[in-house]
Amino acid sequence: MLNFTVGPVMSHPDIIEVANHSTPYFRTPEFSEVMKENEQLMLEFLHAPERSRCVFLTSSGTGAMESLVMNVLNDQDQVIVINGGSFGHRFVELCELHKRKFTEVKCEFGKQLRQEQLAGLENHTALLVNMHETSTGVLYDMSMIAEFCKKNCILLLVDAISAFIADELDMAELGAAAVITGSQKALAVQPGISVVALAPVALERVEKNEEVCMYLSLKQALLNGVRGQTPFTPAVTTLLQINARLKSIKKVGGVEAERKVIAKIAEEFRNSIKDLPFEFISETPSNAVTALHPINVGAKEIIRILKDEYQIWGCPNGGEMADLVFRIGHIGYITNVDLHKLIDALHDMGKRGLL
Amino acid sequence: MLNFTVGPVMSHPDIIEVANHSTPYFRTPEFSEVMKENEQLMLEFLHAPERSRCVFLTSSGTGAMESLVMNVLNDQDQVIVINGGSFGHRFVELCELHKRKFTEVKCEFGKQLRQEQLAGLENHTALLVNMHETSTGVLYDMSMIAEFCKKNCILLLVDAISAFIADELDMAELGAAAVITGSQKALAVQPGISVVALAPVALERVEKNEEVCMYLSLKQALLNGVRGQTPFTPAVTTLLQINARLKSIKKVGGVEAERKVIAKIAEEFRNSIKDLPFEFISETPSNAVTALHPINVGAKEIIRILKDEYQIWGCPNGGEMADLVFRIGHIGYITNVDLHKLIDALHDMGKRGLL
Repeated sequence: MLNFTVGPVMSHPDIIEVANHSTPYFRTPEFSEVMKENEQLMLEFLHAPERSRCVFLTSSGTGAMESLVMNVLNDQDQVIVINGGSFGHRFVELCELHKRKFTEVKCEFGKQLRQEQLAGLENHTALLVNMHETSTGVLYDMSMIAEFCKKNCILLLVDAISAFIADELDMAELGAAAVITGSQKALAVQPGISVVALAPVALERVEKNEEVCMYLSLKQALLNGVRGQTPFTPAVTTLLQINARLKSIKKVGGVEAERKVIAKIAEEFRNSIKDLPFEFISETPSNAVTALHPINVGAKEIIRILKDEYQIWGCPNGGEMADLVFRIGHIGYITNVDLHKLIDALHDMGKRGLL
Repeated sequence: MLNFTVGPVMSHPDIIEVANHSTPYFRTPEFSEVMKENEQLMLEFLHAPERSRCVFLTSSGTGAMESLVMNVLNDQDQVIVINGGSFGHRFVELCELHKRKFTEVKCEFGKQLRQEQLAGLENHTALLVNMHETSTGVLYDMSMIAEFCKKNCILLLVDAISAFIADELDMAELGAAAVITGSQKALAVQPGISVVALAPVALERVEKNEEVCMYLSLKQALLNGVRGQTPFTPAVTTLLQINARLKSIKKVGGVEAERKVIAKIAEEFRNSIKDLPFEFISETPSNAVTALHPINVGAKEIIRILKDEYQIWGCPNGGEMADLVFRIGHIGYITNVDLHKLIDALHDMGKRGLL
């Protein structure tokens, strides 16, 4: 099967080989070195400011999202939540669950956040945003958001789960207090690990805030991370894959080189399907994904046919968009041959009258 | 390296092969079938009562421990916590964190819980126990505990993280409300997944109790599990390995047949090192592990020499026991040849005057 979802995605053979062994024991100086290298490379690739830290949680991206709401924010905060889809909605739910005071800023499906939507919110203390709202493919205007946050001394917390590597991201330049990502997006290894990078301002908050969950405690993760360890048994194999992947990114010229590859795939895909009866959903698409609305047929059926007749996984949408939108991911180990199999399959469906 | 820790442990080549591929996409009917089979086989192997359910969290065992304290217990409960080592202590910390009213019953390091220690606690509503306290190797007298709980209508919540498969466990017979385990113990696949089995009485409580954490919400896991899915992207590869492993256990005659293999390895190891200067720590050892106190030398140095000079991982203890106790695990894919390499290494260390 070819996998063009937005995660889990296809891994490079060298990365797969890392998992082709029994998981090694991890309470060793050797594994600690791996973890310290993971932290250092992640901070480098995120352009994190001096004295930032990075920890690895054995969880999905939602675990990392919740860890920010629980550990970095507190009940004194007034939080702005940008909600333009399923993942923005998840931040809303997390703020409700943890009784954070918040204002929801809604964006229409596929639409960019506009500056005027933030007017009047200058007195807030923190802002939560899914840099790339993965459900719609919208890449938010991070420069505008960052400028607003800096001007008003608002703590900027960035979910870059599907944006990391795929889209331009400079933590120091944005002045972001925290950035999170996950193992199964452009890192393109197994799912099971989420990554939380914290600038000094966020580290101070984690230190001061009361712990509300042991498993998702960033305080404990940071403390153990100093010696290259985790408080609890982590997904060791996935962390070893992350290490191999980060080192290979470094070798090919860093995260910017890797981004160009993804951007090129996205561009080629979008250009190749312009004549098919799809509407592009996102006003400002991320390189990671193309969200499409099929004009004549249901999205679910397209996903089913791609899977059953072309051995290709596309990415379905959930909820009320399930039959209106499907997505094609551009992250992971995608060869030119693979990409053209997908493009050919969609054109073939067109010829067969299935679109 | 040979791995004789208590997790992660060595995996069978057929299980490793499952991870030797890109992780497949999981929001598919095919993966749902895998998950439903995982649930059904886990309940079968645990001898869970009728209408029990089982969910899989992408977390370490601690995530599952915390999920019980958060989702099954509430602030009306009066909880008995059996604390005979690091993992009992973790339940104590979790109850403190989540403001559960509890009474701690301490067991000396390596000692069995005695019935008289429960006297006077009959008015409690729940009991938390690490069936096998992995840090000391003590397997608690579960029949005695279960009888006490049944007699006094006390909800029995069992951490069987390192006991599942290795030691006799019949959820229905014990009348246990919940049993948890993890992927990297006797299931012998990658770490990253914990398993939570809930009898109807626990399911009712999960339904009624207020949600306090989204990521570790058993309510959401149960709801999504009905359709063979998880609320958030799980460690898909590890779940596929669990599926392969559970089916292979079924094929060789079920969990009882697998237990015999582990018990035989434990027995052979213990008999083979009787003449070495070690004290056996546990009064009533689990089949999963042998905890040893080296009489003449430090435990840390034994672990280091085994690793650096014999390419064998033994399992260090943490905290104040770090230099007094080390452990040898008997779970995972251990061949007879492997076992004898370990036994020979320890005898060789003895001859070299290192013990």
